[in-house]
Amino acid sequence: MRAVDIIRAKRDGEALSREAIESFVRGVTDGSWEDYQASAFLMAVVLKGMTAVETGWLTDAMARSGDRVTLDHIAGIKVGKHSTGGVGDKVSIVLAPLAASCGVVVPKMSGRGLGHTGGTLDKLESIPGFRIALSLEEYKKILAEVGCCLISQTENIAPADKKLYALRDVTATIESLPLIAASVMSKKLAEGSTALVLDVKCGRGAFMQTPPDARALARALVSIGTTAGLRTEAFITRMDTPLGRAVGNSVEIAECIDVLSGRGPGDLSALVVRLASRMVLLGGQASSDADAESKVRASLVSGAAREKLRQMIKWQGGDAAVVDDVTRLPSARHVHMVTASKAGYVSSLDALLVGRTAVALGAGRDKKSDPVDLSAGILLHRKPGEKVSAGDTVMELRYNDESRLSGALALAAPAMVIGDTAPAEAPLVMGWVHDAGEQMFVDGF
Amino acid sequence: MRAVDIIRAKRDGEALSREAIESFVRGVTDGSWEDYQASAFLMAVVLKGMTAVETGWLTDAMARSGDRVTLDHIAGIKVGKHSTGGVGDKVSIVLAPLAASCGVVVPKMSGRGLGHTGGTLDKLESIPGFRIALSLEEYKKILAEVGCCLISQTENIAPADKKLYALRDVTATIESLPLIAASVMSKKLAEGSTALVLDVKCGRGAFMQTPPDARALARALVSIGTTAGLRTEAFITRMDTPLGRAVGNSVEIAECIDVLSGRGPGDLSALVVRLASRMVLLGGQASSDADAESKVRASLVSGAAREKLRQMIKWQGGDAAVVDDVTRLPSARHVHMVTASKAGYVSSLDALLVGRTAVALGAGRDKKSDPVDLSAGILLHRKPGEKVSAGDTVMELRYNDESRLSGALALAAPAMVIGDTAPAEAPLVMGWVHDAGEQMFVDGF
Repeated sequence: MRAVDIIRAKRDGEALSREAIESFVRGVTDGSWEDYQASAFLMAVVLKGMTAVETGWLTDAMARSGDRVTLDHIAGIKVGKHSTGGVGDKVSIVLAPLAASCGVVVPKMSGRGLGHTGGTLDKLESIPGFRIALSLEEYKKILAEVGCCLISQTENIAPADKKLYALRDVTATIESLPLIAASVMSKKLAEGSTALVLDVKCGRGAFMQTPPDARALARALVSIGTTAGLRTEAFITRMDTPLGRAVGNSVEIAECIDVLSGRGPGDLSALVVRLASRMVLLGGQASSDADAESKVRASLVSGAAREKLRQMIKWQGGDAAVVDDVTRLPSARHVHMVTASKAGYVSSLDALLVGRTAVALGAGRDKKSDPVDLSAGILLHRKPGEKVSAGDTVMELRYNDESRLSGALALAAPAMVIGDTAPAEAPLVMGWVHDAGEQMFVDGF
Repeated sequence: MRAVDIIRAKRDGEALSREAIESFVRGVTDGSWEDYQASAFLMAVVLKGMTAVETGWLTDAMARSGDRVTLDHIAGIKVGKHSTGGVGDKVSIVLAPLAASCGVVVPKMSGRGLGHTGGTLDKLESIPGFRIALSLEEYKKILAEVGCCLISQTENIAPADKKLYALRDVTATIESLPLIAASVMSKKLAEGSTALVLDVKCGRGAFMQTPPDARALARALVSIGTTAGLRTEAFITRMDTPLGRAVGNSVEIAECIDVLSGRGPGDLSALVVRLASRMVLLGGQASSDADAESKVRASLVSGAAREKLRQMIKWQGGDAAVVDDVTRLPSARHVHMVTASKAGYVSSLDALLVGRTAVALGAGRDKKSDPVDLSAGILLHRKPGEKVSAGDTVMELRYNDESRLSGALALAAPAMVIGDTAPAEAPLVMGWVHDAGEQMFVDGF
């Protein structure tokens, strides 16, 4: 099957055979397809689409392009988790130890931040000594001993996805539902999960900006997972404003510890409990949603979840004492307080602009090769719906490189809008797509 | 202007700015666009199209990507000619000396055969000693001395087109009207013509298989030429059956000499007179169509056209004596006669299958790197509408490599259909698109 014939078939809108799709993925992996053929094919997929069946085959072939972790040495259901990425989205770092403390095994390979969204790996690396680049053997051992482990993808996890993503990034072929879904799920299928709870972010600070787009992605992800034999469900959650009150790396780790200590911000804590409960239920550690939620809450109250984080940090080579003393985390040399120009209520706080402000302070990267300042970041003193007086501190900018402040301030200033009345409350969980159907909790889908 | 942004804009169906299109062509020429970016862009163009204005800018940028020949040292209008390619299409080789013998300067860079269509250069190379790879200086000198010159594109004529064509060939991005039109016209704009007569082939043996497709291409070509300041017109001519009675290389040269000697086959001779008359009129060498046609016919009768061919061959290093003695052309060792299995009338003779038969005999190439057997070819003893008795020779296959015969016969057998009655006569010239409008002479557009 020649590359040019497969490209032509997709260009003409045909549904491809499994053989054709496997030939493409094999060709990308072993180099027998040239990059210029792969990119022409990707553009044809962007413009002509793929059926759910094709997308499933693509995902499967990508997952099998490298190592596929098996965790059969550990009994029970392994529940993976994935977020499509947002601002202040530190959920994985809380969820993994929380679900593990309730008896669920949580295998998790994470990514780095890019653009205005942060990355779990960057955040974890702000814990002194924490190692994210473990071998598969170490990963399997820690999962067996601790029940959770957060690492970077090893070199040979879904190598086809790595090559394709690099190519898509420079050929304007990122924006394709089947390609996005296959990219996400190929890595999840390879990392050893047998069930999956997904968090599809929706809004100004997310990749999917509208409810219909987010629902389409949620459906595609759940369809792929279910077809591959994983019990899979996806929550669609709001990402118009940052999650929690911390945006950055070390500042977010401190907030994670707060949540696991029962003193986290309301929005973040509520979302974590919701997602953890589903993981506990899917992991077979509870008999009902209510039972799962009570187990999750008990683990937060008892300190078991916090203890699990401490164990994971220790096993991954990090300074576990940060759990009791966040001053051991790196902190920035400079602090700048942004104050409110008038009194009122915060009517909106734009996730995209806050994310960009964090990047401007050095906490994130525009290009993959950019270095990240682990202690730079933002603390949000006010969030939407909260009352503010003129002169109140609304944002605390932390940074090391003084030349970065003015650029950050230019982005921070328009991020918050103060109005005369409190805005209507917007539920954080907007929808839920699962193997037996879907529920949408807000209008707009 | 970043490549990825230009690709994205076309992907999203936007009309591009001149600057964006020039950035693409420059990037392809100087390598600052990667091949995988160019191919993604090309696929976006295939699927999203280009406006006439964009296509004009693309053509202009491609024409200016290398040398642009100026023929200002020769007085008068230089009339180029281009055919989109067919089977037995030796028209250029007759037209150039014929129009030149009427006082028109005919600059012409030609291509090689690929697939089932032959190429002017291969045919010319069957003349012993004939040189097609001349320098631009030699080309200009011969044009000034003789009035016509048929050469291969020099290395630096429209280099962007060469790179793009190679990429399109392996990425299923050939089939795009704007890309096809820009490829044809960029070379024409670069070769030094100031007016242009185009022959858009239409039918089973042509790239454009239906009248609407052929008309669309004709319109695009005329629009680009006119916008670029060249008086341009396109004839749409039938290519369901081979043109003339010879298909191959040396056999077609012999037929060209026949036409210039006033004894060529009717279809070919009529088309040549029609096109040559327009070239003479556009070249300012006649006051009306009738005047132009009478000058063309006079040149055929007087032997002036034939003399012009002799001069051109001599100036290009070839054996001019072939004009009087075609046995000096290479001839094949073997001849196989295909006979009619029944009596009746030839109802069709498929150009595509005859073209493939010629390739099977060695006269053409499937891949660019294949060698060509200059003496292999086909003589068509019967053409559509002609009466045939059982056992009559209908095709004469000429070849050197005996292993090729069986494959060629398998293709030749279904090429000709014999019926009980003569088919309705189908006019060769189907339509005409020019700067003042268009006329279609048959139904089906």
